[in-house]
Amino acid sequence: MDLAAIGELGLIGAIRRRAGSRGGAWRVAIGDDAAVLRPRPGTDVVATTDALVEGVHFRFETTDARSLGHKALAVNLSDLGAMGARPTGCLLALALPPAADPRKIEGVVAGLLAEARAAGCPLVGGDTVASPAWTLVVTAFGEVPAGRALGRGGARPGDRVLVTGELGGSAMGLRLLQGAAPATPRNRALVRRHRRPRPPYAVGPRLARRSFVTAAIDLSDGLSRDAGHVARESGVRLDVHLARLPLARGLRAAARELGLDPLALALHGGEDYELLFCVRPGAPSAAALGRQLGVRLTEVGGVARGRGVRTLAASGEARVVRGQGFDHFKTTSAPAEE
Amino acid sequence: MDLAAIGELGLIGAIRRRAGSRGGAWRVAIGDDAAVLRPRPGTDVVATTDALVEGVHFRFETTDARSLGHKALAVNLSDLGAMGARPTGCLLALALPPAADPRKIEGVVAGLLAEARAAGCPLVGGDTVASPAWTLVVTAFGEVPAGRALGRGGARPGDRVLVTGELGGSAMGLRLLQGAAPATPRNRALVRRHRRPRPPYAVGPRLARRSFVTAAIDLSDGLSRDAGHVARESGVRLDVHLARLPLARGLRAAARELGLDPLALALHGGEDYELLFCVRPGAPSAAALGRQLGVRLTEVGGVARGRGVRTLAASGEARVVRGQGFDHFKTTSAPAEE
Repeated sequence: MDLAAIGELGLIGAIRRRAGSRGGAWRVAIGDDAAVLRPRPGTDVVATTDALVEGVHFRFETTDARSLGHKALAVNLSDLGAMGARPTGCLLALALPPAADPRKIEGVVAGLLAEARAAGCPLVGGDTVASPAWTLVVTAFGEVPAGRALGRGGARPGDRVLVTGELGGSAMGLRLLQGAAPATPRNRALVRRHRRPRPPYAVGPRLARRSFVTAAIDLSDGLSRDAGHVARESGVRLDVHLARLPLARGLRAAARELGLDPLALALHGGEDYELLFCVRPGAPSAAALGRQLGVRLTEVGGVARGRGVRTLAASGEARVVRGQGFDHFKTTSAPAEE
Repeated sequence: MDLAAIGELGLIGAIRRRAGSRGGAWRVAIGDDAAVLRPRPGTDVVATTDALVEGVHFRFETTDARSLGHKALAVNLSDLGAMGARPTGCLLALALPPAADPRKIEGVVAGLLAEARAAGCPLVGGDTVASPAWTLVVTAFGEVPAGRALGRGGARPGDRVLVTGELGGSAMGLRLLQGAAPATPRNRALVRRHRRPRPPYAVGPRLARRSFVTAAIDLSDGLSRDAGHVARESGVRLDVHLARLPLARGLRAAARELGLDPLALALHGGEDYELLFCVRPGAPSAAALGRQLGVRLTEVGGVARGRGVRTLAASGEARVVRGQGFDHFKTTSAPAEE
């Protein structure tokens, strides 16, 4: 483990200070072989890792360095939240072309550190290596009361399916970027959803304390695929009412202008980093629970016996969907809609 | 977090089974958003991450896939050992060219899983993404009795400096590979040291229990650089007696044939993944401690007031060395000796 190479770029001091200021249970280990965490008694440690690769997950033509650093951490913290965990620290493995622009490197690190600070999740170590392509691999750690981590496998027939926030905004933002759309306030807001997702970090840990929550996942690959993950791991079918999907503000109008289907973007688009979770039949309503959690919640469907994901149109037409969200082995970051 | 893409290659079942069989304190989370660890009371969690990039840290011309998987984990477990930690689990972020040979992928995963099994360190999750270049980022977790983790910053003047095992073998093995040397038993043994390092995983955790151990580091970048890390973090100077360096078996003869300096390879070569550690003046001798730990130990020098690393030749000549080991921003995996 060696983040010292960043030191040669004058950033090591900044990293030490900022990580140390929030260190809490971590003994900060930039400049050591590993980082050391003193877990709080009665908690489980949750760990996740996600990689972002230039040309696959991002392009510098459509993102700025700070947003990239922000997103590299945010997507991992989103995974922690889906497990019900509060973030506690992170590692960054940064692979860079030898000729990488130092301002880009500084921007990426600054963006990551800003989000780390906002989320209370200090950077405690990492590795810096040379590579043909920019690659950011963040490993994030969180804590959850022992035995209370949320999983994908607990949904049961009769459960209701809820989502936080709004959907389709990130996918629309990416399309606007790719189409070089004019920078109107509406378009900028949609683009920002793509570049700087704001997962509801605080919601997962609060859901983990409610015994009526049976399963949770974050919406990274697209609702259709992610609901499919829950269906598969739980051995059930998830039914999604298309008319209930909470469309991102401005999505409908922007999609119309580009001749796109806003529902398809909300259903398959991916990278919204909202939470989808299932609750027992007797749980509070979406509105009541949303008020308790301080977040917009929408009941988008229910859980039934069977398998896979079924969409229900306003017309009553039911379709079994194969997940069409982001495929990690596609070499474009465009959400699939074929 | 998503290792499921490996499932499309028929490996997910194997990973689940093997990780699960050793799961212990982990709730295995391949197919979930994150992995969950239940730390044992009274222990600290140690975490480290290291990246291996094709063309920078390895080439398929000079390594086989299984060795690569082995090494990707071993270099991380070596970092854990240097902190005094026993490995408990790992994550793998695997970035692959879309056209990557499935047999190579299987080989890499099989090599990693074999070493994971041998070290008692189950693979508990990860991410698979597309990339222009093969990149393996392993994050490894370990445990150490609370407050007993070893660091680089504790060496004090008067301490003695010890190393485990033998040095220079990995660098010589790489040179033999690059020179397409004949596959004699001697050369094969040296090449194996490069391709499949065997860090002394059990030694670090045992050192962490001895209060006379003041600092430790694993020899990844080369003794000269790694001793320099200890010197810098401890605010001292490390003196290294060149004649005492324990040269790898066969190194001297192989180096002679290629016109190389075996001492330079042992001093600067890197990737031996042995431990260098410092002990208080009153600690047992290297021989006695080595017998207790079941490992070859050599006292190679001492700690003095000052800074940096000084080598002492048999002639009595002293030189201040600047670390010449592996530079992470060089784009060749050859150890620097310029």
